[in-house]
Amino acid sequence: MNEYYQRSVDLHKKHQGKIAMCAKVDLESEDAMSLVYTPGVGRPCEEIRDDPKKTYELTCKGNTVAVVTDGSAVLGLGNIGPEAALPVMEGKALLFKKYANVDAWPICLATQDVDEIVETVRRIAPGFGGINLEDIAAPACFAIEERLQDLGIPVFHDDQHGTAAVVLAGLVNACERVLNKPLQDLSVTIVGAGAAGIAIARLLAGVHDGNQSLVKDIVLCDSKGIVSAEREDLDPVKQSVLSYTNKEKKKGSLKDALQGADVFIGVSRAGLLSEKDIALMNPGAVVFALANPEPEIWPDEAKRAGAAIVATGRSDLPNQVNNVQIFPGLFRGALDAGVKQITQKMIRDAAYALAACLENPSVDQILPPLSDLSVPKAVADAL
Amino acid sequence: MNEYYQRSVDLHKKHQGKIAMCAKVDLESEDAMSLVYTPGVGRPCEEIRDDPKKTYELTCKGNTVAVVTDGSAVLGLGNIGPEAALPVMEGKALLFKKYANVDAWPICLATQDVDEIVETVRRIAPGFGGINLEDIAAPACFAIEERLQDLGIPVFHDDQHGTAAVVLAGLVNACERVLNKPLQDLSVTIVGAGAAGIAIARLLAGVHDGNQSLVKDIVLCDSKGIVSAEREDLDPVKQSVLSYTNKEKKKGSLKDALQGADVFIGVSRAGLLSEKDIALMNPGAVVFALANPEPEIWPDEAKRAGAAIVATGRSDLPNQVNNVQIFPGLFRGALDAGVKQITQKMIRDAAYALAACLENPSVDQILPPLSDLSVPKAVADAL
Repeated sequence: MNEYYQRSVDLHKKHQGKIAMCAKVDLESEDAMSLVYTPGVGRPCEEIRDDPKKTYELTCKGNTVAVVTDGSAVLGLGNIGPEAALPVMEGKALLFKKYANVDAWPICLATQDVDEIVETVRRIAPGFGGINLEDIAAPACFAIEERLQDLGIPVFHDDQHGTAAVVLAGLVNACERVLNKPLQDLSVTIVGAGAAGIAIARLLAGVHDGNQSLVKDIVLCDSKGIVSAEREDLDPVKQSVLSYTNKEKKKGSLKDALQGADVFIGVSRAGLLSEKDIALMNPGAVVFALANPEPEIWPDEAKRAGAAIVATGRSDLPNQVNNVQIFPGLFRGALDAGVKQITQKMIRDAAYALAACLENPSVDQILPPLSDLSVPKAVADAL
Repeated sequence: MNEYYQRSVDLHKKHQGKIAMCAKVDLESEDAMSLVYTPGVGRPCEEIRDDPKKTYELTCKGNTVAVVTDGSAVLGLGNIGPEAALPVMEGKALLFKKYANVDAWPICLATQDVDEIVETVRRIAPGFGGINLEDIAAPACFAIEERLQDLGIPVFHDDQHGTAAVVLAGLVNACERVLNKPLQDLSVTIVGAGAAGIAIARLLAGVHDGNQSLVKDIVLCDSKGIVSAEREDLDPVKQSVLSYTNKEKKKGSLKDALQGADVFIGVSRAGLLSEKDIALMNPGAVVFALANPEPEIWPDEAKRAGAAIVATGRSDLPNQVNNVQIFPGLFRGALDAGVKQITQKMIRDAAYALAACLENPSVDQILPPLSDLSVPKAVADAL
């Protein structure tokens, strides 16, 4: 069993979870109570009634994000439901606080229906300054996020864009600053067509920018191989990917995709790749093996097969790709700037800001350490 | 302007609201992060997936209450909407914390439709150990609360039962312990047939107990006079009140109701009563003039007209009736005992427990001071 498992259970049990509500104001005197509650509280209420914008000045809304899940795709555990997702959501709330002083509260939904999730988020929105969608399975996550973009507060699916932005930041540093290879010259194979894989493809392809791709080409693979026009089993989301990937009209298996690729990005499953697979790629490949907790290929194997730089999702290996370097700062910036949406441009800018936080990237350090608290600030300032 | 108003606005602005999310666990070391988040957090998730009851052990659910409002009946301000209600909800959350260490979070709903409110509360329930309905207008509040009783966690409308319980506690002490008059011998006039008025009538009439009334009789009045069988304008809730009130079949105006009454309970509007009205009551009347912030009649007027004991909702007058003496302790007790509903019997027991907290009640002190922190404990223990 994972070395952290029993200790984690003990910790959760000892404190009955990990988060609490606490006061930002004094409650001790009777006078204080008259200000935070009746009769004084009536006046802030009236001011907001008369000018709803003041909700941001006078309440917690402007610093508060709902971490919303339906428990359908939690960590690598899959569809474990809203209650079992709560420890992750509490953890997420703690990361929001630690990295960006955002007050996040978990909202675990007893529905996995797209319409109902959209409807519920709309109904609870008045008390929140932003919505972080979390651990919602693809393809539902795409529709939910898209349909909520008119909500008037930022709605952001971290598993998509947080991951995509950190991947982009890592690629910028690995390829351009360490290996001196412009992204524009590189062919990228992405494996995994869930929330993260699709979002990485979209961001690298510059979909928001009229498909002004940041890389030479992208080939997306799912468990059945290359996502290509010949395939008749593609859902609408995967079909839409065809318009901005696979310029060379590749078809076939993952091996066909790896042939001649410069960059591998895996958001799929442990042990997917062998050394032989890596050897199919161009020399000096960049391999992001991000399956959690065990990567698609271990770094030493990938390097033996010729990879120049390897990143994983693991904290115990060099080059950890972790979306905590994006979402806290991005929401901090969005809340402070009062933006109504987090756009793809903001996400791309955040990625470049993250990359720039590291002064001297190297083969074994393409991203700043998670302990670097200048990162969320730089990401926030990039908005 | 109320002396607290500007200072309250300043306070809310200074802190951007009043509540925050905070950590119950250490986040500083990398080891700590591995326990509260990945990879350690996966194990508590799995334990809950395999045994949902463990949600209460391993997450914040068991100590967390959603304070849910639709903003339709906020303080005396009426239907000001969910955003403008937020300062009150934050204040409520602070009272939960201060009095009973319950972590409450506001959920302000962008709907005032009964079906939609019920549906939304059901959907967000997995992350909460209880639901405190707040500032929802009558009669919607009755249907919402009733329909949510099968949710599996306590759902409690404080404006109804919190108020009713403190009123009962105050009456027990005022009538039985100070004036030596058994409640059973007393005729009670209640004015105001909203959330509080109906709930007070139900509790005093012992509706949950086969209408084993705690008092001799209850006459309920709304803005049109006595709620009586002759009236053709009664909504279903007021019609149902007829089955347990007004045994003498009184009809007519408020003045007709006051004739021969021993107790007046007002949850209506400022200045409703004159000294002449009080004089219609039996000698040595007990007057609870609870309209906020200005009572139905001021205590000195009521006393000049013969009232023996007067209570109001105000902190600057003797005998403040404030539901903060019930809801924190009641939820504390309900969460600790793991009950699925807060029953009328629990509410009545809580009222008697509150009354008993005061060792020597007197004309000018029928309830313990709000500063008495033994109250929430006694209320919790009464469950």
